[in-house]
Amino acid sequence: MPASTIGQRGPTEHHRREQIIAQANTHFRLYGYRKTSVASLAKAIGVSSAYLYRFFDSKQAIGQAICHSILKGMHMRLQELVESDLPPIERLRQFIETACTLSLELFLQEGRMQEVVIEALQNDWSTVDQHRQDLLVQITVLLRAGRESGDFERRTPVDEVAHGILLALTPCLHPVLLEMHPPEKTRQSLQLVTQLVLRSLMP
Amino acid sequence: MPASTIGQRGPTEHHRREQIIAQANTHFRLYGYRKTSVASLAKAIGVSSAYLYRFFDSKQAIGQAICHSILKGMHMRLQELVESDLPPIERLRQFIETACTLSLELFLQEGRMQEVVIEALQNDWSTVDQHRQDLLVQITVLLRAGRESGDFERRTPVDEVAHGILLALTPCLHPVLLEMHPPEKTRQSLQLVTQLVLRSLMP
Repeated sequence: MPASTIGQRGPTEHHRREQIIAQANTHFRLYGYRKTSVASLAKAIGVSSAYLYRFFDSKQAIGQAICHSILKGMHMRLQELVESDLPPIERLRQFIETACTLSLELFLQEGRMQEVVIEALQNDWSTVDQHRQDLLVQITVLLRAGRESGDFERRTPVDEVAHGILLALTPCLHPVLLEMHPPEKTRQSLQLVTQLVLRSLMP
Repeated sequence: MPASTIGQRGPTEHHRREQIIAQANTHFRLYGYRKTSVASLAKAIGVSSAYLYRFFDSKQAIGQAICHSILKGMHMRLQELVESDLPPIERLRQFIETACTLSLELFLQEGRMQEVVIEALQNDWSTVDQHRQDLLVQITVLLRAGRESGDFERRTPVDEVAHGILLALTPCLHPVLLEMHPPEKTRQSLQLVTQLVLRSLMP
């Protein structure tokens, strides 16, 4: 079962499912994931909680669906960069910067939308693990391009390098840390870590 | 005023102060910082809360003193490594590993002692900032040794490099992240990030 549909029930295309997701989006944005109850969602749509449970078996299942759609949006914007024809070093630099910017946007522009992503991280929902895997694949593609062009070193196994880069980017990407620090500080960290990562890739 | 004595009152050497610190240490270890009240500390020592406030103006002031002593203990053990005569690359590697191990020990062996450090981090107590500065100074000393021996590159300003390394080590050192992940995962991260850092330093 794909991570986005865990805990979901009933026919996939049912318009009620979309209505629940739309309502949950609004509620999470305004009140946060933690303070939203299945009962309040059901009430806002004008159905019973029991009816809502025919589509999602828990609040977490709704959270998973929303978290999946947020992270998928990030993934698609990053994928455009991965597939661009920028020179490899510049492509990696922009990839890192965009990943950090999109993560910051979640906090700066989306109301309390970050709560569901933090909840996902702290409870190890499969959506978050999928996101990490997606980022690793994208970084690996960027690394291979830089290795082929001769811009990046080729001695270290590529998966070790990709994993190390994702870890080093933690202060720029991890929602719990982004929540703790002012955005300007995260932007400064981004510059310093990006430079370190690029130095580590030199042939 | 040094970070360790903020919010402290009365004669520094008074044995009551030591008694309060010792009792707070026990309470934080057993019940955690958050659940410990000034009243319960006073009761355990057999004095009134008002008397205790003659030495510390708040629970946070007591927390600061304890947090300072934990971090100072880490600092001193790391300083031994910084001053050792190991070859620069090996010295940096052991420094990073020891910093991670000492941070993990706080979670694995010290009861609920990590709570006061997390509280300090989340509320930006000056003790934590001092710890960060201490780590930066130590990393800078290690970098200079490696630059002099010709083991590390010298093109990048040394403070940028030191800062970048400290940021890249976030997944191995940050108490909030160490609390979220199993220790084996942190140890794996440590290996990958250490390798990345060492590659970034190659001349």
